[in-house]
Amino acid sequence: MIEFNTHPDRYRHWTLSVEGGVARLALAVDNEHPFKDGYELKLNSYDLGVDIELSDVVTRLRFEHPEVKALVVTSQLDRVFCAGANIGMLSASTHPFKVNFCKFTNETRLALEDLSHNGGIRTLAAVNGPCAGGGYELAIACDEIHLVDDNSSAVSLPEVPLLGVLPGTGGLTRLVDKRKIRRDLADVFSTLAEGVRGKRAKKWHLVDEVWSRTKFGEKVQARAEEIASSGEDRSDRQGIEWKPVERQIGEDDGKVTYSYKYVDLLVEPAERKATLTVKTPDGAQPQTPGDLQAAGCEAWFLRAFKELDDALCQLRFEHEDIGLVLLQTRGSLDAVLDAEKALVGMLDSSWLARETVSYVARVCRRLDLTAKSFFALLDRESAFGGVLLELALGGDRIYGIDDPDHPVHLAIGPLADGHLPMSNGLTRLQSRFLADPEHAAKLQKEQPRLDTTEADEQGLLTFLVEDIDWDDDLRIACEERVSLSPDALTGMEASLRFGGGETCDSKIFGRLSAWQNWIFTRPNATGEQGALVCYGKPETATFDWRRT
Amino acid sequence: MIEFNTHPDRYRHWTLSVEGGVARLALAVDNEHPFKDGYELKLNSYDLGVDIELSDVVTRLRFEHPEVKALVVTSQLDRVFCAGANIGMLSASTHPFKVNFCKFTNETRLALEDLSHNGGIRTLAAVNGPCAGGGYELAIACDEIHLVDDNSSAVSLPEVPLLGVLPGTGGLTRLVDKRKIRRDLADVFSTLAEGVRGKRAKKWHLVDEVWSRTKFGEKVQARAEEIASSGEDRSDRQGIEWKPVERQIGEDDGKVTYSYKYVDLLVEPAERKATLTVKTPDGAQPQTPGDLQAAGCEAWFLRAFKELDDALCQLRFEHEDIGLVLLQTRGSLDAVLDAEKALVGMLDSSWLARETVSYVARVCRRLDLTAKSFFALLDRESAFGGVLLELALGGDRIYGIDDPDHPVHLAIGPLADGHLPMSNGLTRLQSRFLADPEHAAKLQKEQPRLDTTEADEQGLLTFLVEDIDWDDDLRIACEERVSLSPDALTGMEASLRFGGGETCDSKIFGRLSAWQNWIFTRPNATGEQGALVCYGKPETATFDWRRT
Repeated sequence: MIEFNTHPDRYRHWTLSVEGGVARLALAVDNEHPFKDGYELKLNSYDLGVDIELSDVVTRLRFEHPEVKALVVTSQLDRVFCAGANIGMLSASTHPFKVNFCKFTNETRLALEDLSHNGGIRTLAAVNGPCAGGGYELAIACDEIHLVDDNSSAVSLPEVPLLGVLPGTGGLTRLVDKRKIRRDLADVFSTLAEGVRGKRAKKWHLVDEVWSRTKFGEKVQARAEEIASSGEDRSDRQGIEWKPVERQIGEDDGKVTYSYKYVDLLVEPAERKATLTVKTPDGAQPQTPGDLQAAGCEAWFLRAFKELDDALCQLRFEHEDIGLVLLQTRGSLDAVLDAEKALVGMLDSSWLARETVSYVARVCRRLDLTAKSFFALLDRESAFGGVLLELALGGDRIYGIDDPDHPVHLAIGPLADGHLPMSNGLTRLQSRFLADPEHAAKLQKEQPRLDTTEADEQGLLTFLVEDIDWDDDLRIACEERVSLSPDALTGMEASLRFGGGETCDSKIFGRLSAWQNWIFTRPNATGEQGALVCYGKPETATFDWRRT
Repeated sequence: MIEFNTHPDRYRHWTLSVEGGVARLALAVDNEHPFKDGYELKLNSYDLGVDIELSDVVTRLRFEHPEVKALVVTSQLDRVFCAGANIGMLSASTHPFKVNFCKFTNETRLALEDLSHNGGIRTLAAVNGPCAGGGYELAIACDEIHLVDDNSSAVSLPEVPLLGVLPGTGGLTRLVDKRKIRRDLADVFSTLAEGVRGKRAKKWHLVDEVWSRTKFGEKVQARAEEIASSGEDRSDRQGIEWKPVERQIGEDDGKVTYSYKYVDLLVEPAERKATLTVKTPDGAQPQTPGDLQAAGCEAWFLRAFKELDDALCQLRFEHEDIGLVLLQTRGSLDAVLDAEKALVGMLDSSWLARETVSYVARVCRRLDLTAKSFFALLDRESAFGGVLLELALGGDRIYGIDDPDHPVHLAIGPLADGHLPMSNGLTRLQSRFLADPEHAAKLQKEQPRLDTTEADEQGLLTFLVEDIDWDDDLRIACEERVSLSPDALTGMEASLRFGGGETCDSKIFGRLSAWQNWIFTRPNATGEQGALVCYGKPETATFDWRRT
């Protein structure tokens, strides 16, 4: 099992230090400790283990060190920043692992960008040595790139010329869409194995600043301190402890259960199906910023969504064959709505409330971007209120039971009104009602509580199912879904979930999942004579030259 | 060799009839005449041959029948509209052919949509029988879908459930982005092999109108006549003859030459390289609408771009191994600029000028969407003026010679100022200068004439190359380019060419090229036990269930 819990005290590869408003995150990959055996992590190249630590720290920072306003990302090794994803790891990995790894890696980069967009922390890549491939993709996820100007420190994306794959974990798209590098220069850069150095890198806007080796450290530090000393005063903020996710894992008769406090995940491999159950708050939830601070990670919103995030990552990496996830909720509609209203009421006065909502938004996006079918079930015991309804709206279908004797309710909450944007910048109601934006706006504003019949009339259900048909209809729907080609479903869901406008984020993900899926399966990359497989060996790659 | 020239008199599958402002295009696929041997075209299923006729007619219509204001697309067969792309053809085709076929098919659908967007011709799909897969993709490329309401006429996208591939030639994206169908209903629809009929199809917005079989013909005709009789009067327009493209093909020492009047294409398979040369006008070009009408297809703009379009299609289908296209121009900068200024000057007064520009814009987009590298060469004899510079800007790199003794010039023309939008809605200058939209606007407005040194300063060249280095530098650049993985180049170019915003068109193409490339190579679709291969056979497909 992959353990996503970690802690700075146990990091092998990254070192976090915080001084006043400036945090410093330095990479010195421990090449003796790859995530799996069989390859060495030379030259600050990374694998999932390195990335899990990065993912941990970019989230932890926002909760444990809310006073921070500038983050410097740099290398602790002499004369190398980061050589990108480890090639030995990539060639030794299965196709699904490679794609899931790229997605997780990019989600971490988006979290790094979210530090800046929603956390108010400006990020600086202090590129103090050669910076290649995923290393440069990491740098362009930062707000500013400072490059040391010497004879060896180039930035580069050598995937195309050396490996026959793409810098597709955001690299290509961020070049032209985020940094707006001229497309022909981006073409040259992306085909130049040795990359670009010094003043030319700055001229092409591949980096923002270049400094001589003697001045580099001092200039970057001065810039970070300049950022930290300007704008909002955060010195009175007190962090909360970012606790590990607790779970118990059981196995019985081939089924696997993950039991968290507010989340249960039941995986049934024989049926290629899982059931993900989220429970509403079971006790009093914070009503004031002081309450929120005191509750810390135990507040329902943080604890439940940390658990959900872990469950989604487990589903992706450990249960590749699972095609369908049934999304259930249990508990009290009022409990979740009350907690949500209280949280939203504190947004103006509490940094922790704002950080909580940003975190919840990122977890919701992790669900949107998971390549499994999600069917939400509004059964008799369900409690799809507020943010839990948002999860349902992120999935592919919503089934609601029609039981006149025991009406089942759902409710839209205040978070639906723009606080939890999808990757494409839309709310999930806007995305659902592309044809009728006024209807989406009305629902977001009025936040109605509806029984399933009313919800169906308002377009919130895919199917309203009579109670006597519920079990049979659901059984058939599940059987049908898991019988379909998993590849076709992945492409279909990625296309249908993201209608409407696009942003840099949604373009990255749309391209990542499609192109990486393709390139990584092509003989030209991963065949016996493929470039990725031949890299570092005496053989040179042999290509099928047909362009498609 | 694939012959893209055809004529309504020789159509085997479509029948065009025009009466007043209403054109009618009826499909009755001749199942005895597939494009290649080995499959039968049952149930109005289509292959490239059917699509070449459709492509011809949607262009021809605008030039030969400019009086038309409504186009009805329907079936002549009893009880079937169109069963989509022929499965036998798909399973028997190579991967590159399948992808190129899908791209051409979608370009034809975009041309159908362009009838409406730029040609002022409203399009009606009269779905008079079952309409499946690519058949429904054709219908949703029309403005309105009228469906006969009986017990058998459903619209459907059965690719996912029956074939393990995607309705990815625009289908999925048009569902949610163009028709804005609710994403969960789109999910149900796209997994329902039998499709959706009658009132439910209308309720879900899969079609616009449903009519009983007895009223169907009359209702559709009435609607078409209503459109034709409203708005602009086009009855005084006189069409021009849409002539076939003339070319001579030569083969010598393994090299293939296509010689047109204004275009030369030299294909060098051993070097995986082609040279595409476009010549400027060689005689007087139309200065008035009367001149333009008299010149017809012989006007440089139409003739040269018809030839270029044919050359691009030949490159895609007949020369799959060619990775790099060198784009050259020959002739007089003034000649092309004068012709362009005259044409743009007639846009307000001449429908033919407007149609010419729309056509040129479509050909430019065909180049943008071609999966080959394009390097434009501003050598001593070049004449990259106006629309020819636009072609260079659509490619990946521009090399300009720096010869102080013989300065070489380029010039931006008036068409660059918004008349030739890319699929993503941007001009090629906007797309080039995403970081500096004011600079793009200034160049579009001022339309300067610049020598290569000045052009380089203005950001229009990728490389300014000293004349003594020109031959060597170019040779090395070509050798390097054609040595790279063709798959990686395809993904890279598709990502870098389309920075900035997205439209429905660019989303369709971005997804088409990536997802179709993936799905069509997956064992789940095209392996021995894949769904596409097993379709229609006694065997059922066997899937690798891992979701990626």
